[in-house]
Amino acid sequence: MVGIIMGSDSDLPIMKQAAEVLTELNIPFELTIVSAHRTPQRMFDYAKSAHERGINVIIAGAGGAAHLPGMVASITPLPVVGVPIKSSNSIDGWDSILSILQMPNGIPVATVAVNAAKNAGILAARILGATNPTIQQRMVKYQEDLQKAVEAKIEIVKGDYPNGFDQ
Amino acid sequence: MVGIIMGSDSDLPIMKQAAEVLTELNIPFELTIVSAHRTPQRMFDYAKSAHERGINVIIAGAGGAAHLPGMVASITPLPVVGVPIKSSNSIDGWDSILSILQMPNGIPVATVAVNAAKNAGILAARILGATNPTIQQRMVKYQEDLQKAVEAKIEIVKGDYPNGFDQ
Amino acid sequence: MVGIIMGSDSDLPIMKQAAEVLTELNIPFELTIVSAHRTPQRMFDYAKSAHERGINVIIAGAGGAAHLPGMVASITPLPVVGVPIKSSNSIDGWDSILSILQMPNGIPVATVAVNAAKNAGILAARILGATNPTIQQRMVKYQEDLQKAVEAKIEIVKGDYPNGFDQ
Amino acid sequence: MVGIIMGSDSDLPIMKQAAEVLTELNIPFELTIVSAHRTPQRMFDYAKSAHERGINVIIAGAGGAAHLPGMVASITPLPVVGVPIKSSNSIDGWDSILSILQMPNGIPVATVAVNAAKNAGILAARILGATNPTIQQRMVKYQEDLQKAVEAKIEIVKGDYPNGFDQ
Amino acid sequence: MVGIIMGSDSDLPIMKQAAEVLTELNIPFELTIVSAHRTPQRMFDYAKSAHERGINVIIAGAGGAAHLPGMVASITPLPVVGVPIKSSNSIDGWDSILSILQMPNGIPVATVAVNAAKNAGILAARILGATNPTIQQRMVKYQEDLQKAVEAKIEIVKGDYPNGFDQ
Amino acid sequence: MVGIIMGSDSDLPIMKQAAEVLTELNIPFELTIVSAHRTPQRMFDYAKSAHERGINVIIAGAGGAAHLPGMVASITPLPVVGVPIKSSNSIDGWDSILSILQMPNGIPVATVAVNAAKNAGILAARILGATNPTIQQRMVKYQEDLQKAVEAKIEIVKGDYPNGFDQ
Amino acid sequence: MVGIIMGSDSDLPIMKQAAEVLTELNIPFELTIVSAHRTPQRMFDYAKSAHERGINVIIAGAGGAAHLPGMVASITPLPVVGVPIKSSNSIDGWDSILSILQMPNGIPVATVAVNAAKNAGILAARILGATNPTIQQRMVKYQEDLQKAVEAKIEIVKGDYPNGFDQ
Amino acid sequence: MVGIIMGSDSDLPIMKQAAEVLTELNIPFELTIVSAHRTPQRMFDYAKSAHERGINVIIAGAGGAAHLPGMVASITPLPVVGVPIKSSNSIDGWDSILSILQMPNGIPVATVAVNAAKNAGILAARILGATNPTIQQRMVKYQEDLQKAVEAKIEIVKGDYPNGFDQ
Repeated sequence: MVGIIMGSDSDLPIMKQAAEVLTELNIPFELTIVSAHRTPQRMFDYAKSAHERGINVIIAGAGGAAHLPGMVASITPLPVVGVPIKSSNSIDGWDSILSILQMPNGIPVATVAVNAAKNAGILAARILGATNPTIQQRMVKYQEDLQKAVEAKIEIVKGDYPNGFDQ
Repeated sequence: MVGIIMGSDSDLPIMKQAAEVLTELNIPFELTIVSAHRTPQRMFDYAKSAHERGINVIIAGAGGAAHLPGMVASITPLPVVGVPIKSSNSIDGWDSILSILQMPNGIPVATVAVNAAKNAGILAARILGATNPTIQQRMVKYQEDLQKAVEAKIEIVKGDYPNGFDQ
Repeated sequence: MVGIIMGSDSDLPIMKQAAEVLTELNIPFELTIVSAHRTPQRMFDYAKSAHERGINVIIAGAGGAAHLPGMVASITPLPVVGVPIKSSNSIDGWDSILSILQMPNGIPVATVAVNAAKNAGILAARILGATNPTIQQRMVKYQEDLQKAVEAKIEIVKGDYPNGFDQ
Repeated sequence: MVGIIMGSDSDLPIMKQAAEVLTELNIPFELTIVSAHRTPQRMFDYAKSAHERGINVIIAGAGGAAHLPGMVASITPLPVVGVPIKSSNSIDGWDSILSILQMPNGIPVATVAVNAAKNAGILAARILGATNPTIQQRMVKYQEDLQKAVEAKIEIVKGDYPNGFDQ
Repeated sequence: MVGIIMGSDSDLPIMKQAAEVLTELNIPFELTIVSAHRTPQRMFDYAKSAHERGINVIIAGAGGAAHLPGMVASITPLPVVGVPIKSSNSIDGWDSILSILQMPNGIPVATVAVNAAKNAGILAARILGATNPTIQQRMVKYQEDLQKAVEAKIEIVKGDYPNGFDQ
Repeated sequence: MVGIIMGSDSDLPIMKQAAEVLTELNIPFELTIVSAHRTPQRMFDYAKSAHERGINVIIAGAGGAAHLPGMVASITPLPVVGVPIKSSNSIDGWDSILSILQMPNGIPVATVAVNAAKNAGILAARILGATNPTIQQRMVKYQEDLQKAVEAKIEIVKGDYPNGFDQ
Repeated sequence: MVGIIMGSDSDLPIMKQAAEVLTELNIPFELTIVSAHRTPQRMFDYAKSAHERGINVIIAGAGGAAHLPGMVASITPLPVVGVPIKSSNSIDGWDSILSILQMPNGIPVATVAVNAAKNAGILAARILGATNPTIQQRMVKYQEDLQKAVEAKIEIVKGDYPNGFDQ
Repeated sequence: MVGIIMGSDSDLPIMKQAAEVLTELNIPFELTIVSAHRTPQRMFDYAKSAHERGINVIIAGAGGAAHLPGMVASITPLPVVGVPIKSSNSIDGWDSILSILQMPNGIPVATVAVNAAKNAGILAARILGATNPTIQQRMVKYQEDLQKAVEAKIEIVKGDYPNGFDQ
């Protein structure tokens, strides 16, 4: 089970992309709002109990001075995937990236690209697949599908631009 | 009473400058280590009880993904002064600055310059002086002393470089 | 009494958010334009007399090479809250942040996030509350309200995304 | 089994910290050099076969235009932890961070802080612990040890700076 | 023959400007999609065989963590021109620039400005012209045409702003 | 007469390079310390009276949140040359550059490179030479001397590396 | 006489603001296009002859890798004011700023803020006024007018926000 | 024949690495100093005549506001490889990179990594090899040698860290 949390409902349009890709990969998840700054006790309780409630991976997204992923990682023993969000109060995403990425020794956060909630979902799937052959096989298939999607586009582009390599 | 906290004892050489200037300004303080990431429960308890224990201002210093000042500010109703520290795991201080400065609406941190623990102490004194004429008067005096120190240097420089303005 | 000043009337749409939150928190303020670069004498006079006129905290907002907060802080003994404004002549706010934040030893400015005039107002309230239990209690209440607002959103999100934690 | 790879033997002083923390956590690993740019075929073969050879997590470190973590992630279905290295040819680590972090949709890399190979090892342990209670329990213990180390330092600091909170 | 490749069809509106300028300069090219992350084997094969298929210069464009130009350069002995693309998942182009530019010793990429596919085409022409007097002469002519276009604009501006230099 | 001012005597090792080049160019100057933040009244008086005291150009150097050049420019009608100084409290010079360069409409500062006090002196000479043929002629000569210094180095390098261009 | 030049007619909407403020200040100027990269010989000739044609100050604007101001400064003995332009091919103006500002020792460019052509015009006027009392007096007047414009806005703002300082 | 030029003899320790790798690859070159800012006429003459003197590729290195590569590229029809140098007057190399990379449409510079003169030499060899099978074959061999050097290091590392992949 993957737990998806975010600091504010304004992060939902980005963060639900994690939920969507997990649905597509047939991996169960739950999603809710946990604000490090506005509901610190809730954040504490969520992080403290997650591994006891059957959560295996936590995906946490936040913008600006983004403390949620790192604070949750300091309380839970689970892997935490951090999604820097380029929110309205962010300076081009730099603040979110650095607040999530630059954790001190002992407390890592698995940081993905700015707004890359979809990749956070895929990373959670890879994490579960690390020791689960069925899920790992789904990732192999997912990557093959990415490749096929590109191959379809190659065909389309070949209409306007024939090339010697694909003869 | 000013509470000075920092994420690690490696921050002490910087953070004790806050203690020193408060001593100089005759303002009581206490100082200890509170790590947001390694002692999250302690951080929670410290922030929750500070205003009940007679603390009026909290000075919090941290480096890298610096969550201590913002997390403490989210739990206490007191003014929190944040000191970004250019620690060994910091990218020129940018991560510390942005993690402390870019707090979301509702939870401000009074951020000072990188490594500026001395200024954090002075800011705490100004905050106490906002409603306390004795301390405010000490700040007036402190600024006059800064001016006198510059004036002494002007005299020295005049030895090598006489100038028409100071005739 | 909180004094709110800004370098230009073009900063008013941002800076009036400080006035609004102070109104909401029932804390008296006054607001006017003081330009460090276009009315330097006025800036000087404002800063020199503020603490004698009953001002306890000054909130100063400016964009670009933002000298107003730091210059006022160099003249007044009061705590000065600086608001970096991402004005039309600013490079993504970096110039405003650094001009306000990176003050030399002796002259701190309590810097808040880019455009965070609302947080500047809340910080001024926390500063007044540092030694005033009534205002401090209002801040406790304000933080509880922030929490309740999040809890209401959690309920809404639960409609689409039920989760095991909030059962 | 964790596979630790790096682009050059000059990265070994940093990357062996991942090996050390995994040893400490009693998690088997192997370590070797795989250069995306100088041994692209080796990189390809390593990434293609890793999950079939019993590797569960790959830790990849590289500096400058750091392509190793992302390229390996594009070939393997395993979770890849990327370590940006501030090597001699790096611009303060920014190039390494962005080359590893900003992966396109579909191919995540779990990025940690600059030079944070130790955290990469801990993250690999958390990933294995996500579905393995014994390892997860070791992480709980590891975090408790971090806390105890801070508590020991608190005692030492108390010698010079007694504080009211720890009475 | 110039080979133009890009990581995604979303890069085509930029990258086709390389094709257009090569057409204008009467230099043969082929264009297709090669994704380092989604079709790594195709990338490998393309780079491996390019110089044997009669390609003389490769132009490779990519955004975000842009590994295509550098990976292709690590496999082919041909000069590779890299075009950093400010794609939707890019942080103002910085990630693309640094991922392409900061290659390690031994494997250069000839990097051009952000989105400068047109300049990549011109650079490919200059490369072919380095040892081919006919193409070199076309470049001389191309630069004269640039100059003439500016001279025409000078005439137009002179209407509103007469100047003493052009008398 | 050129007036050279700086915020602190710690800036003197940089700022005296302006004095040295002006001496070399036989242009009179005076030099003193004027701190915007520690001696604001002195700064005000210096700027207000400079043009009446026979100063024609002001060179002002400062580090960190560098307000001296801009504040002086806001009070004097003279051209002000600003020297960003990479002082100990500066973030790689970025804060000094942006605080000096990004002045609002109406109040320009002629900014030179980081630590480029020598260039500030030369710029002051060019400014005086704008309407003074004797000084302008000295600048022509100065540039010829720069050229000759390079030509001497070309000769030395030719010892190890003969080249066809200089035959 | 002020010479205003720019790299391209696309810079005219910005650069004509220099012409407008010089018109307002009654200072003669001429304006034309000089491209360092597309008309290098014209650039050379313009810079070489400017001081002989009666030009006293050159204002040069350019975007991206902005070489025009620095190259002109290397050829002319006149003061050159550089205007970094945030053109379509610029990375938020950083490239233009650094290409203009960071000139080597011996060859200064008087750099103003991004897009600040108006300030470039005012700086040219200050330069001419350095030794010309009539123009200097116009600058004094110009600054008084800036102040009056702010005072008018203060009156308007007082309608909504009465304040104790302006009583 | 490759022409190597640099703005100052202080760039020689970096730039001679281009000469060394060209010597190693048996490709003739000449090397001299050409300063865009101190010897503009020499720069003009060098660039104008290079292709007529038998130069096929120009490598140009410069630091700070680095105009040499772009200015030479604007005058010659040859491919110009630009080397950003992190000289003493550079801000971590950013100014050099952006001044060289961000050239306008029509005038490309083939930019390599900061201080990467060695890669500039290799790129020049690749450019000559684009249409010369003998040189191209040397590049193939050069890349095989890079691979062998890594393989030798793999063997050494295997001493301390045996791994399953290289069994």
